[in-house]
Amino acid sequence: MVFTTTRKVRFEHCDPAGIVFYPRYFEMLNACIEDWFEERLGRSFGAIHVDGGFAVPTARCEVRFTAPSRIGDPLELRLRPLRVGRSSLDLEIDISSNGEARLHADFTLVHVAQATGRPASWPDALRGPIEDDIARTGATGQTEGEAPHGT
Amino acid sequence: MVFTTTRKVRFEHCDPAGIVFYPRYFEMLNACIEDWFEERLGRSFGAIHVDGGFAVPTARCEVRFTAPSRIGDPLELRLRPLRVGRSSLDLEIDISSNGEARLHADFTLVHVAQATGRPASWPDALRGPIEDDIARTGATGQTEGEAPHGT
Amino acid sequence: MVFTTTRKVRFEHCDPAGIVFYPRYFEMLNACIEDWFEERLGRSFGAIHVDGGFAVPTARCEVRFTAPSRIGDPLELRLRPLRVGRSSLDLEIDISSNGEARLHADFTLVHVAQATGRPASWPDALRGPIEDDIARTGATGQTEGEAPHGT
Amino acid sequence: MVFTTTRKVRFEHCDPAGIVFYPRYFEMLNACIEDWFEERLGRSFGAIHVDGGFAVPTARCEVRFTAPSRIGDPLELRLRPLRVGRSSLDLEIDISSNGEARLHADFTLVHVAQATGRPASWPDALRGPIEDDIARTGATGQTEGEAPHGT
Repeated sequence: MVFTTTRKVRFEHCDPAGIVFYPRYFEMLNACIEDWFEERLGRSFGAIHVDGGFAVPTARCEVRFTAPSRIGDPLELRLRPLRVGRSSLDLEIDISSNGEARLHADFTLVHVAQATGRPASWPDALRGPIEDDIARTGATGQTEGEAPHGT
Repeated sequence: MVFTTTRKVRFEHCDPAGIVFYPRYFEMLNACIEDWFEERLGRSFGAIHVDGGFAVPTARCEVRFTAPSRIGDPLELRLRPLRVGRSSLDLEIDISSNGEARLHADFTLVHVAQATGRPASWPDALRGPIEDDIARTGATGQTEGEAPHGT
Repeated sequence: MVFTTTRKVRFEHCDPAGIVFYPRYFEMLNACIEDWFEERLGRSFGAIHVDGGFAVPTARCEVRFTAPSRIGDPLELRLRPLRVGRSSLDLEIDISSNGEARLHADFTLVHVAQATGRPASWPDALRGPIEDDIARTGATGQTEGEAPHGT
Repeated sequence: MVFTTTRKVRFEHCDPAGIVFYPRYFEMLNACIEDWFEERLGRSFGAIHVDGGFAVPTARCEVRFTAPSRIGDPLELRLRPLRVGRSSLDLEIDISSNGEARLHADFTLVHVAQATGRPASWPDALRGPIEDDIARTGATGQTEGEAPHGT
């Protein structure tokens, strides 16, 4: 039920120490979030950004790296939405390889209008599927009251 | 029969003009070559570089960009090996989206020993599958006489 | 006294929304850390990784993004070491543009031996300059007792 | 007189073989072209792309890699414009380190209108400085007749 994507560690991801250079993980994490929006929420980043005039920048992220990944390692990324505020969204992503944890990431995204750069309420077409996925994957949704991180 | 991989244009590939920033194409082209080595030739870049002590750097590439790619575009990459020399390999990759050409790339790779940085003959375990794929995809293999580009 | 580097936001850093794509910030943050090791601590990443057989992977990072950066923006990165453990190091980096905060990053790095992948004590040639820079920039150095994050 | 920028090979540019991963060179090459537009032609990519509604995509590039670059290597990039057409521009960039050639790149850029994606004549404010730089650095400018590559 948890949204899951897979990646293989490639040559391009690895540094002279032969392990994944961590900024490359952020590209993978961002791609996982992008896939989740498109495949689970039903709205692509292209539709949101290019057609819609909105954006979903990252307001905060915290990543704990548990073990290094090497070229050829198959990676599994599991994304779980945690809380949705008026215009914010907390989610977590775990990356593992053959069951071994590689990193745990916590993200806070904000839905903003590109024209103003200001937070904008999630449209119902996104809020509904986000709440459904929070309910489905077992975390406690926060849909009323104080938004996390004041947004 | 031609080796084919697919990619989707993501947010991370696009520039402020909303089209693929061309250095990102080189990451896709390199990943296609990496997949071809592993899936068609049976030897991964990890095995060649990390375990084997060899490398397959690019000696030359020429790319002609035909039309821009936008976020969400499905891309098809088709790789065809053209000529194999003692330690060199010429190949071409075409990228298209829904049948529309996006770019044509010509590459010359060289098989080198990491310790010396000097060209090293392709091992038979790679040369055989390369020649098979040249025969299979219809290009004319060059396996004797002068290697292209003097390597 | 605080270690400072500058960067200009380039085309390559920006996404279709015209602002810095945040994984690119991690390349800038890593480059700032790399410069700090070389210019302030007197030991380059090349010397540590390639010649020395050690590595300085990131164990944890937390970044709060305050305001977006646009193409052409001049960025100032200010790095301050906070605490040094047996094999760990906590540091913070602030990025601003013309005095406006863009992000605040907290990092925990670990000094590891490449051969084992295990934490290794900072050599005196690094520990000394780290402690000097902690003293110089006013943060409270932690050089005895419990290392942060157990490393 | 030739437009010159410098870069240092960083950890982030290098692959598991310890040498620059060639897609990273394209980021450096693009940054050199971006600097040349801003510093020598007097018009930044931000002004062209974001404010002006134009773009300068690469229509063709050919790169010959002569020798590998390693972490810490100081790189010198020398850009020379060769020919300017109605909406196209041919230029070359050489990258060397301490006088040793690393690569030679030939580029054809095209000035296009973002709205149509079609080639658009260089504005005089750009054509003049381009012609001046062609004259200054000794190459033969082509400013009349057939544009190169039909654009």
